[in-house]
This record gives sequence, C-alpha cells and structure tokens, in this order.
Amino acid sequence: MAEEEEIAGILPELIQLRQHLHKHPELSGREVATARHLEAFLQKYRPTRLLKELGGTPGITGTGLAAVWEGTAEGPTIMFRADIDALPIPEKNAFAYASQNSGISHKCGHDGHAAMVAGLAPLLHRHKPARGRIVLFMQPAEETGEGASALLGDPQFKDLKPDYIFGLHNLPGYPLGQLVLREGTFCAASRGLRIVLTGGTAHAAEPEQGLSPAGALAQLLQTLPFLPGKLPHRELLLLTLTHAQMGEPSFGISPGQAMLQATLRANLEEEMTALSQAVEAQIRAVAREYGLEVDLSYHEVFPVTQNSAEVYAILRNAAAASGLSVHTKEEPFRWSEDFGHYNKLAPSGFFGIGSGTGQPNLHNASYDFPDALLPYGLQMYRALIREVLG
Amino acid sequence: MAEEEEIAGILPELIQLRQHLHKHPELSGREVATARHLEAFLQKYRPTRLLKELGGTPGITGTGLAAVWEGTAEGPTIMFRADIDALPIPEKNAFAYASQNSGISHKCGHDGHAAMVAGLAPLLHRHKPARGRIVLFMQPAEETGEGASALLGDPQFKDLKPDYIFGLHNLPGYPLGQLVLREGTFCAASRGLRIVLTGGTAHAAEPEQGLSPAGALAQLLQTLPFLPGKLPHRELLLLTLTHAQMGEPSFGISPGQAMLQATLRANLEEEMTALSQAVEAQIRAVAREYGLEVDLSYHEVFPVTQNSAEVYAILRNAAAASGLSVHTKEEPFRWSEDFGHYNKLAPSGFFGIGSGTGQPNLHNASYDFPDALLPYGLQMYRALIREVLG
Repeated sequence: MAEEEEIAGILPELIQLRQHLHKHPELSGREVATARHLEAFLQKYRPTRLLKELGGTPGITGTGLAAVWEGTAEGPTIMFRADIDALPIPEKNAFAYASQNSGISHKCGHDGHAAMVAGLAPLLHRHKPARGRIVLFMQPAEETGEGASALLGDPQFKDLKPDYIFGLHNLPGYPLGQLVLREGTFCAASRGLRIVLTGGTAHAAEPEQGLSPAGALAQLLQTLPFLPGKLPHRELLLLTLTHAQMGEPSFGISPGQAMLQATLRANLEEEMTALSQAVEAQIRAVAREYGLEVDLSYHEVFPVTQNSAEVYAILRNAAAASGLSVHTKEEPFRWSEDFGHYNKLAPSGFFGIGSGTGQPNLHNASYDFPDALLPYGLQMYRALIREVLG
Repeated sequence: MAEEEEIAGILPELIQLRQHLHKHPELSGREVATARHLEAFLQKYRPTRLLKELGGTPGITGTGLAAVWEGTAEGPTIMFRADIDALPIPEKNAFAYASQNSGISHKCGHDGHAAMVAGLAPLLHRHKPARGRIVLFMQPAEETGEGASALLGDPQFKDLKPDYIFGLHNLPGYPLGQLVLREGTFCAASRGLRIVLTGGTAHAAEPEQGLSPAGALAQLLQTLPFLPGKLPHRELLLLTLTHAQMGEPSFGISPGQAMLQATLRANLEEEMTALSQAVEAQIRAVAREYGLEVDLSYHEVFPVTQNSAEVYAILRNAAAASGLSVHTKEEPFRWSEDFGHYNKLAPSGFFGIGSGTGQPNLHNASYDFPDALLPYGLQMYRALIREVLG
C-alpha cells in the first residue's frame, strides 16, 4: 500500500480522536481525561510498553504518557513529542465537537498535535521499526512552560535515553502543510518577571505618614522597556511591560504596595541571562533609592528553542524527502515553546507546519486546528523516521 | 429639673437607640431600616410634622428624615443634622450589639451622631420652642459625598427655609466631650479623580503593534503629585495618588488601557478649582503627547466645610455657655465632610467633639462610638438653641 493511501486509511480515526480531544479540553497540568483517552488510543496499537503518569511532582500525579515501539535490531531511539494542554479561552465555535468545558478550549491546536503523534501508532503497529526504537510521548502543561521540565525531572522518562527528539507547532498564516524550518533559534526564550514594591499605606489626606511606591513604579515604567536597547546584543532582546497595579481602587488610601509585571524575550540564552541581570540590578537600585522593599520572581520561564546544525540537517533532508513545500524562515519566531528544554536530554529538532493562510491566529477564540493538516504532519514524521533509521 | 439630670433621664433610651443602629448598619444611600427606626423614635415625641423619604432621585426613594417642632411665636429656624450611613468595613468588635450585617459597620460613629440629634426630640417634646422652630434631620450617604446634595435638591427640604444649620463630628484622640472649634475652614474639600488612558493591546512579543499607556502612566505618576507645589496657594493643596492599574495580571499581553486614581484636597474652594484645572490640562497634554485617548471623571466630591465669622461667634458663645472644655484648632482638618454643602441653603456651623484620647481612629475596624459621649453632644445642642433663640 502506498504511504499516502495508508495515511488516508487511518484518517477518519485520527479526526475522531482530534475532535474528541477538542470537545473535552483541559488546562495545563490537569490533562487527566485527555491522557486517559490518549492512553486507550495508543494501547490499541500494542506498543512494546507504555509509561504513564509521567512528570508528577510529590503529591501530584503526572499526566505525561510515553508509548515505546522497539525495533528488532539495535539502533537509535527517536522520540516524537506532542503537547496536550488547552487554554483558558472560551470557545466561540458552534460545531458539534465544540468545547464542553466552559471557559477552556484548544486554541493552540494541541489537540491536533496530539492526534498527529498518536497517528504514528497505527503505522508503527503495522510496520515495526527495523532497528532502534520509536517513542511517542504526550507532554502536559506546555502553555505554562512547566511540562517539558516536569518530564525531564522524571527518571522513567530520562531512562528512555533518546538520540533525537522531534516536535512541531502548527502555524496559521502559512499555507496548509508547508514546513517552516530554521537553523539555530527557532523561537525565542521568554520569562515573566513579577516585581512587588512595598512601602507603607497612609490615609490619602496624610500621604507623608506612609511611603507610596508611585515614584519608583513610574521610574521602572519609564526605564525598563529601554534597558534591552542599552545592552550589547546580536539578536532580538525585548522587555514588554504587561501589567501594573498600585493600591486598591478607592480614593481614601495612599498605597503601600505596587506590582509590576514584564515579559523578557531573547533569541539567545546568554543575552536573556544578561538582560535578566541588568533588569534585576536596575529594579534593586530604584527600590533602594526610594527606600522600598522589593520582591522579584520569575514565572512562565521558556528557554530558547534551538535547532543545532546536526539536527537541522536531519530536518532539512526529511523535509525534502517528504515532498511537502518548505519555507526557510529568516528570523526566529518571537513566541516561545518549552520544547527547547529537551536539548538538555538529546539533540532536539523543532519545526513549524502551516495550518492555512485563512486560519484565525493561535489563541483567537475562533481558532480550530484543521483536520486536513493531520496527514501532512504524519508525512513529515515518517520522513524523519526514514532519515534517522534508514 | 436641672438640665443635666433631664439628659441623664433619657440616656438609657438613647443608648438603646444608638446600639440598635450600631447592630443594624446600612451602607450609604441604603439606610432604609435605619430611617424607619429613627422615624418611629422621633414620632414618639410628637413633632409638629415629620417629612420622610427625603432626598430621593427619580426612581429611587430617599432615606432622609426631618422632624419639625414649631415654636409658639415667630422666630428663626434652626436645623440640627445627623448623618446615618455606615461603612463597608467588617466589624471586629464582639459585644452584644455588634453589627449583624456582614462586612458593614458604623466605624465613623454616625450611629452616635443620629442618637444625639434624635435625643433632642424628647427634650423638645417637654419644652416646646418658645419661638421659631427646630428641625432635627437625618442625612443619608455622607460617606459618598452624595447625601447633603440629595437633600438640598429636594424641594420639601429646601422649603424648611432654615436660618442656621448645625452639625458635628466625633473625634477620637480628643478628650471625651471636648469641643473642637475653628473659624473659617473646618475641614478640607476633596474630590476623587479617575483617569482612563486608552491605546491598544498587542501580543507581548510584538508590543510595537499596539499602543501601551505605560509611558504616559509613568509621566502622570511622576508629575501629578508635584502639581500642587507649582501652583500659587495660601492654604493646604494636595494631590495623592491612590490607585493605578494597567492591563491584566498576565505576561502575554502588552496592555492597551491604564487607569489612575488620585484624590485632590484643598482648604479653599478657589484653590481646589485651580488645582482641578491644572491637573486636567496636564493629563490632556500627556495623553496628546502619547497619542492616547483620555477619559476623566470626578467621584466622591466633598466641598470645603466652613464656619463664617457670624456662625463661628454663635458656636463660640454656645460652647462657652455649655460648660464643656473647648479647643480652638490651629489648622483645618484634612479629611472631608459633605456638611459644607449646607452653606448654600443657610449659614451653617460645624464643630468637633472629642470621643476620648484612647479611642481607636475613625474607620478602624475596632472603633465604636462611646455612649458616654451622648450627653455632651446634647449639652452643646441645647446651648446652641439658647444662643440662637434666647
């Protein structure tokens, strides 16, 4: 049977899987029903073994899954990763498989990512790997930047000892099925910084009895966004203020506390480190100047997602062999992925795949992963398997 | 019967009234049960007439009350005002008459103010005014700055055509029963200003696609508090920033809107007007500079509460005759009262009365109006009646 026909044969089942996941979306770290459904799907295709409840923390059961198909001979281990979490965005679509979980929906297409990786299972069931082994794994909590780290902290997961890890993201705005490749940084690192400045409240009639953080807040609002421009950098370096809050919404109290949130973004880890250090020093200097206490914390920390020269060659060769159209991107994407963490475990390759030029953007309330994209992802995955295992 | 004995005789009834009001506090503009209870109390002492549901607005029934005792001969009309609203502050006290309305309590002592004015009713019942008439009135919504204006907008209220209006506030920190007097400004004018700056949101990775209000917010935070110092002024002129909010508490969005709240304070109406104009001009200039839309609105507007030379002489003479200790205050109080509005209707006199040096501050969750203060207020009211009516 020709490869395309074979994929077409399993497509109805994959569409059903994708739409089931879409209908029952779950937030990051709570993908319990999602994992159970995917586990049942994978088990049907008799993996050599299936690891579940991966990536837990003390007291919390993980929702990661990994299904392993062993080859008959020795050889490299390839892992394919799908993220499976949904977003806290109410669904605007009215189709039959629209989200049944109020306020939650798959607006980043992770339902499609999961169906594409799971779609390799029936194919691996029919064609056992000639050598090495192939692992299909489902990663929770990508949106919060916590899932990849959680799996990497799980000894069972690390023991899979992969030689390569691959992942993808669907890309609205690019032609359906077009592969988007880039050597080096594919998408930026980002991290949220929360700054809490504490002085003292007072009655609004006697502000001099307290210590308002207003002046310090103003100075940070004015200086922080320009700090990246003052640091030497070769690639994108950006600080965006996202939120500020000072005092309560009343007229009677001179506030004693202010909170400021900013997102730092960089294409190179060393430039992110330099920016973080400069930002922290600036904040502490301003707090000192105004006599305020300061508390800094980082949230939603995403690393740079990077394709090494070796992995990029594999991606490029597989893409050429896949027969799909290929776009080589000039600049990295500015958004972030927690896939970059996997480079700590093994050479990891990440690519984009167009989900159509007319598609609503990711995170848009009308977005829906196009089922027509499922076969294209599988084509590239099979090309990657052939490229690595021969 | 000596005056002091007479007051002592009605004290148990007044304490019961005060504690009943304390137990059933109601927020500004919603003093329905409070007004009903006070109405029943006043009716017992057969006023010549009683006006109720005063100060309503179209569609909303007012909660103001005015009880009139006519004298037998022509003469001036004196009005005594009590405010009757409570605050959105949870009560911390555990006594038998502690607030039964969750999250609401009499932390400004208006329960005591109401009991003192109502306490004149049994006395007027026994001793009809020889001439003129005396009006005891209960004003809703002092805390929001809306009640006095509402009564002044009610034709029934204005038709009472008073010659003098008197009011007081209890003052923790001053000896129990000590009268606190001041000629000219007694307490400051204040008004809340809400500023909403609107630009446009963007993804935090591409802030240049939006228009963040951060820079304009910073400039206002830095410049507004110093504006009063740049204007010519003879008396207190103060701008206190009380609240700021920009965007949502996330890391993914560059904000498109910011809100800033400030309280303006002045001892002279003309200086308040000049400050308001300067602040508005500054805000509009900053918004223009940053290309933002701006919306300004005023909230909780309190006028200056002022004692004219004529009224101050009456207060001073009555205070001396009352036998109570008197403190003449050097500087006006910085807090505000909506009593100042009554000067539009008639010469109005406002004074303070100490509620004890050991008392918790007004608006403190442990504060409770001391029942021991009730007789002192009545003593001063009777002295004022004698001073005006002879």
